Amino acid sequence: MTGNQAAPATHGVHSEVGRLRKVLVCAPGLAHRRLTPTNSDDLLFDDVLWVDNAQRDHADFVNKLTARGVEVVELHALLADTLRVAGARDWLLDRKIVADEVGVGLVEPTREFLETLDPQKLAEYLIGGLATGDLPEEFRPPYIALAREGTGIREYLMPPLPNTLYTRDTTCWLYGGLTLNPLYWPARHGETLLMKAVYRFHPDYTGSRIWWGDPERDWGQATFEGGDIMPVGNGVVLMGMSERTSRQAITQVAAALFAEGAAERVIVAGMPKLRAAMHLDTVFTFADRDVVTLYPAIVDGIHSFTLLPSDKAPGLDIVDEGDSRFTDVVAGALGLPKLRIIETGGDAYASERQQWDSGNNAVAVEPGVVFTYDRNTLTNTLLRKAGIEVITIVGAELGRGRGGGHCMTCPLVRDPVSY
Amino acid sequence: MTGNQAAPATHGVHSEVGRLRKVLVCAPGLAHRRLTPTNSDDLLFDDVLWVDNAQRDHADFVNKLTARGVEVVELHALLADTLRVAGARDWLLDRKIVADEVGVGLVEPTREFLETLDPQKLAEYLIGGLATGDLPEEFRPPYIALAREGTGIREYLMPPLPNTLYTRDTTCWLYGGLTLNPLYWPARHGETLLMKAVYRFHPDYTGSRIWWGDPERDWGQATFEGGDIMPVGNGVVLMGMSERTSRQAITQVAAALFAEGAAERVIVAGMPKLRAAMHLDTVFTFADRDVVTLYPAIVDGIHSFTLLPSDKAPGLDIVDEGDSRFTDVVAGALGLPKLRIIETGGDAYASERQQWDSGNNAVAVEPGVVFTYDRNTLTNTLLRKAGIEVITIVGAELGRGRGGGHCMTCPLVRDPVSY
Amino acid sequence: MTGNQAAPATHGVHSEVGRLRKVLVCAPGLAHRRLTPTNSDDLLFDDVLWVDNAQRDHADFVNKLTARGVEVVELHALLADTLRVAGARDWLLDRKIVADEVGVGLVEPTREFLETLDPQKLAEYLIGGLATGDLPEEFRPPYIALAREGTGIREYLMPPLPNTLYTRDTTCWLYGGLTLNPLYWPARHGETLLMKAVYRFHPDYTGSRIWWGDPERDWGQATFEGGDIMPVGNGVVLMGMSERTSRQAITQVAAALFAEGAAERVIVAGMPKLRAAMHLDTVFTFADRDVVTLYPAIVDGIHSFTLLPSDKAPGLDIVDEGDSRFTDVVAGALGLPKLRIIETGGDAYASERQQWDSGNNAVAVEPGVVFTYDRNTLTNTLLRKAGIEVITIVGAELGRGRGGGHCMTCPLVRDPVSY
Amino acid sequence: MTGNQAAPATHGVHSEVGRLRKVLVCAPGLAHRRLTPTNSDDLLFDDVLWVDNAQRDHADFVNKLTARGVEVVELHALLADTLRVAGARDWLLDRKIVADEVGVGLVEPTREFLETLDPQKLAEYLIGGLATGDLPEEFRPPYIALAREGTGIREYLMPPLPNTLYTRDTTCWLYGGLTLNPLYWPARHGETLLMKAVYRFHPDYTGSRIWWGDPERDWGQATFEGGDIMPVGNGVVLMGMSERTSRQAITQVAAALFAEGAAERVIVAGMPKLRAAMHLDTVFTFADRDVVTLYPAIVDGIHSFTLLPSDKAPGLDIVDEGDSRFTDVVAGALGLPKLRIIETGGDAYASERQQWDSGNNAVAVEPGVVFTYDRNTLTNTLLRKAGIEVITIVGAELGRGRGGGHCMTCPLVRDPVSY
Repeated sequence: MTGNQAAPATHGVHSEVGRLRKVLVCAPGLAHRRLTPTNSDDLLFDDVLWVDNAQRDHADFVNKLTARGVEVVELHALLADTLRVAGARDWLLDRKIVADEVGVGLVEPTREFLETLDPQKLAEYLIGGLATGDLPEEFRPPYIALAREGTGIREYLMPPLPNTLYTRDTTCWLYGGLTLNPLYWPARHGETLLMKAVYRFHPDYTGSRIWWGDPERDWGQATFEGGDIMPVGNGVVLMGMSERTSRQAITQVAAALFAEGAAERVIVAGMPKLRAAMHLDTVFTFADRDVVTLYPAIVDGIHSFTLLPSDKAPGLDIVDEGDSRFTDVVAGALGLPKLRIIETGGDAYASERQQWDSGNNAVAVEPGVVFTYDRNTLTNTLLRKAGIEVITIVGAELGRGRGGGHCMTCPLVRDPVSY
Repeated sequence: MTGNQAAPATHGVHSEVGRLRKVLVCAPGLAHRRLTPTNSDDLLFDDVLWVDNAQRDHADFVNKLTARGVEVVELHALLADTLRVAGARDWLLDRKIVADEVGVGLVEPTREFLETLDPQKLAEYLIGGLATGDLPEEFRPPYIALAREGTGIREYLMPPLPNTLYTRDTTCWLYGGLTLNPLYWPARHGETLLMKAVYRFHPDYTGSRIWWGDPERDWGQATFEGGDIMPVGNGVVLMGMSERTSRQAITQVAAALFAEGAAERVIVAGMPKLRAAMHLDTVFTFADRDVVTLYPAIVDGIHSFTLLPSDKAPGLDIVDEGDSRFTDVVAGALGLPKLRIIETGGDAYASERQQWDSGNNAVAVEPGVVFTYDRNTLTNTLLRKAGIEVITIVGAELGRGRGGGHCMTCPLVRDPVSY
Repeated sequence: MTGNQAAPATHGVHSEVGRLRKVLVCAPGLAHRRLTPTNSDDLLFDDVLWVDNAQRDHADFVNKLTARGVEVVELHALLADTLRVAGARDWLLDRKIVADEVGVGLVEPTREFLETLDPQKLAEYLIGGLATGDLPEEFRPPYIALAREGTGIREYLMPPLPNTLYTRDTTCWLYGGLTLNPLYWPARHGETLLMKAVYRFHPDYTGSRIWWGDPERDWGQATFEGGDIMPVGNGVVLMGMSERTSRQAITQVAAALFAEGAAERVIVAGMPKLRAAMHLDTVFTFADRDVVTLYPAIVDGIHSFTLLPSDKAPGLDIVDEGDSRFTDVVAGALGLPKLRIIETGGDAYASERQQWDSGNNAVAVEPGVVFTYDRNTLTNTLLRKAGIEVITIVGAELGRGRGGGHCMTCPLVRDPVSY
Repeated sequence: MTGNQAAPATHGVHSEVGRLRKVLVCAPGLAHRRLTPTNSDDLLFDDVLWVDNAQRDHADFVNKLTARGVEVVELHALLADTLRVAGARDWLLDRKIVADEVGVGLVEPTREFLETLDPQKLAEYLIGGLATGDLPEEFRPPYIALAREGTGIREYLMPPLPNTLYTRDTTCWLYGGLTLNPLYWPARHGETLLMKAVYRFHPDYTGSRIWWGDPERDWGQATFEGGDIMPVGNGVVLMGMSERTSRQAITQVAAALFAEGAAERVIVAGMPKLRAAMHLDTVFTFADRDVVTLYPAIVDGIHSFTLLPSDKAPGLDIVDEGDSRFTDVVAGALGLPKLRIIETGGDAYASERQQWDSGNNAVAVEPGVVFTYDRNTLTNTLLRKAGIEVITIVGAELGRGRGGGHCMTCPLVRDPVSY
């Protein structure tokens, strides 16, 4: 696993289950060592992690992906490689170490300290956060006294970004281009700028087509997270309209895709606004070309809409799918008679528990081969009985942020499947 | 009371207790009719109001201010007057009715509907919010179906801004110029743009000197709210460093004031991060030249710092006042031997209740004459015994958003006092 | 208004809207002066009250009831009268001032202090609570130091009982007898013992038939609150099955009523478990013989059951009313073709606000004459248009505990109406 | 491991670190399969468990205890053995299956169903809860329809008791006798009755001396949990005065111990009321005769009191230890010059995380040999450097209810140590 490959790949994601050739992940690290019972809610984690074991379990996940022929790029390494490119370090620090974030009087010493660091260490702080306590004595001016008065999350000069663990959300490859997503919660806003630096400076990534999004401007109500977005193939993109992904963003991205001819149809899944169903992929993922695993208590309540290209402004038409079942709308768009459905396993107690533990959050490496957490044994058994090969990830620590294999992977290159 | 006067005033606020000559308030209205038990927390109100009575009580407050010789400007009227100025309507709607806020497909019909409105009605929607249900049938395209799926606060095309009631926070006149404040909570972000329109287009306000702030850009961690800020005179400004006003903003504003020669000293009050003490003026206000009313349970815990101009970058020096009492630091800066202190009245129960009910949130119209809520009878009695004239505001409804007379007034012209 | 009348009345409540002849209320007082922003949630109040004004508004309510010919009994006075009866004081203090509540070492001095008080003052502490700080110095043994370490609600030797304001809940007259109710929240458990003392010792109340309930034993899951219970006449009792009134209690009370021949039919209203709908009377009350005011957003979701007497154990049969509307089930039981329905007034915002402000919590003094809060002007107007006489209560303070006129009255004598 | 041994042991716990000879634990099981994201807060768990793995990790803990020579009694087995004793089944079911808990009409069929079960299955339901859905069709009368309307925790006929996992809290052996504890949270009230059945009927346990407590009566504010109680030897008992253990109970138990001559001194640790410090043993436990592991952020704030026997009523004297450090007060009572202290390991982040993960919740099997969770590697290392032998328990699942090895063990026989 490295963050840099010899020859630039041609990136693109053309399905949810075609062969996965290259993927971005982010290992647990310093950002998770910052989590405490006091701040974890603000940082969107339900509990603290044993970081050493989370790292072990994540490394095991990466090894198994690699063994399946997937090229795995890790974000700390990728960011360090990016920082080695001329101009990248200045570009990022010019945007991060500003008076709005660190305060007048701390800009210069903070920048000076960061300039002493090698790219790898700097990448660790960019993702893991820089606390005022991390500044060595010689870089601590009297102004630091004001920061000492602050508490909890706000005593950072750069905030920790523990949700980088869920690389899925920050950027989305949709067929031949990508989006740089404005994320919903303030605790995640800093993630997208790091990815912009990668796509702007790293030789493997420069020149990628960007459909929509730019972390250097404020997108207001238009928020968009990759966990809600699925380029399922056949020119179709599924978009969950959820707590975190808004209609304001969905309509913009759909219009942009249609204008570029990058997609022919967007299916919007109107989700109930529940914390247990924060993203579409927490209740619905693909395990094979025509097989999905889903949590019926939520998916049965989805109200679907279809967006189609239009010659007239604003460039899209909308069809309200009314009482049609979401799975039928998806099947129809893919040209399938119907989807085979694997529901969350067990009784009322067990299925609620398994959905919570990311039981439906499968990620495929090829048609019929998925990764899921080990702990959802009942759902995993149902998938296996349906002929799916299930490879397990140890979820004791990784699952505590409410994300599974699908959330922890951002596909960079994935083959199409035929429909 | 009107929003427009014949001759442009020369605005400026030179003390906390000098004669108040002109003030900005905002009457309760449509925004408060939007408050429900379900959404009030998100909109920062603890309970719903009986809006008719809140309007009556607010009008009574305005009448009493006027009777004391204060020129009172009301925000709905001021904004309507502003919208009558050529270019102002387009400037505002170009910034409000955008795809990021209303969604693709709704920009044009929403704008078209708003263009049909007279300035007064448009001002009401700008402050009171525009729900999708407010769009007449002929302006409702099929895309509205997506919005219908949304819930609560997010089904607005323009959000309601009920906290405009507290005009104190959004802009601050500090001696001869003002700040356009980036507010802490997302529910209040829309307020500052309305004020920028006023200062950009309204003939009474154009040409004002702006020390700092611009709602058209993102200020990150640098948030600043007028409830924390007091230009007490003698070149001194008090700034509460609280949940809502950050050191990142305080240091920037101090540097700007020093660079302009607009102030000579900023005293930072490091407040505990408690909801009951959201702003400095919820626990500490001036009633006379040397008289303050304060809530000791909080003020005793304030850690003070003094910021002073410096020739060297970044243009300010910091003095940690250590264990000195905040009131002593303030007295010293004003050249007073000490402040006379009126504490919140009553036993442990009563004083906690009265602070909560804005018992220390007095606003002076001249030295020794203040407005407070009627319900804090014990504190009001103590003020009166100390020789302060106390004029009461009916607080049954107005006080439910946790703000009193000081919060509901933004002084535009106030005389200095001598120290 | 006194707590004691010359000749013992024959108590009994035979309808929801027949002439109200005698009623129990409880004035705001010491218990509400104990409420602070810190403890009000635990004590079930959403905000603190201005107690002086709450007392004024409550007195006005009592005066208006009296003017309508209702004999009003006030709980502080009633309890003081009860304490004057031989044995009553000892009976109550033997049960209140015990080691389980005040702690070893504090039993004797606390009891000694309370013995010094006259009945009126003792009644005030029994309702208003006794804080450790209320013990005079000479009654404070060294053991008090342990209590000083406690915080908030637990530093009381007798807890404050501010919810006595809602006398409706604690006891229910159902036709010719009453229930002594086990209340749901621990903060209210102390109320029922006070009422048992009244019914055991006060000459006007001894000899009353008690259908069910005894505060001297633990009722487990069987909790029962008068706000859910309505003896509507014709032998019918409505019982809301809510957060606070459980099926375990409902079935016991129904069986007891049937065994005594006191009722012929119980209609159970299966309510959603929502805080806004804590009791049936917060969403549904009678204004006239065949007129109800209700909040459709909740009442439309009620699932009804009918309980009927049976010769076989356990003495009751159950009929699941399936999809029948609750109002139709009630009308049928009363022999009416249908109920006339006055819904909460106004648009979606206003009706949610008014229900929250007890807009549907009317109490009738005779058929077609009700008391409601002034602030729910839209619902009041609809009632008036339907021919109901509406007398208003000032609700600015009284309404903050989420109860209206129905909650604040416990009918002791009410005439039947014919159906 | 069995619940029944040939010869009755003489139970008694004479220290915190002397050789542990017999201990009560409770394996995870049905009660934990009931936990869902929706109900876990009410049941006092922060997250759901993977029950299969929790069982594996608990069995491993038991095996390691056994390997150290400890006789381990498991609660399900112990309860099943108890139910085999004549009269025990009736005694328990007469108290559990009553109208207050299951509702009129469900008492008989529920009892009939339970009578069909063998002791082992019945024990599983007594601990794991009986949902209405568990009643077979032939035992489901029409009254069940009311229960179906209930939600979440309340749809049980017998509640699940997942906190039996923490056997430490329910009963405490203090030298030669025990207490049957009234627990603080309603979700745990059912635990103590099961233990009373054991001590009343099981031949190994009958005849035990009970100092205080009886689950068949209501103890009001007097709540007592074993996690706060430590019989450290030398006639001393430590008692944390916490959210869950009240002064009302502490003073009663102290008086009872003194009256029986069972202890000579009780040291009360006045704890801040914080959730992270729910019991004394979450921040302070013994690892050896004179070695403790503690979390200084909390323990430094403890205010200590000493209770001593007295000839005069109420039988105890109190000494306020003022500013003396808790550890010094404890050392003095044990006749030690001072305690050796092992603080929670790591920086501010890590120590807060480890305390949360039960890092200080060690249980000794003999002087200098303790069990702790594996995940608190930094604290475990510090213990080892201090010469303590640390045996680890896998905490990935077991720790999610916020209890460690000390909480999961209720010593029945432990030797004294000399001081």
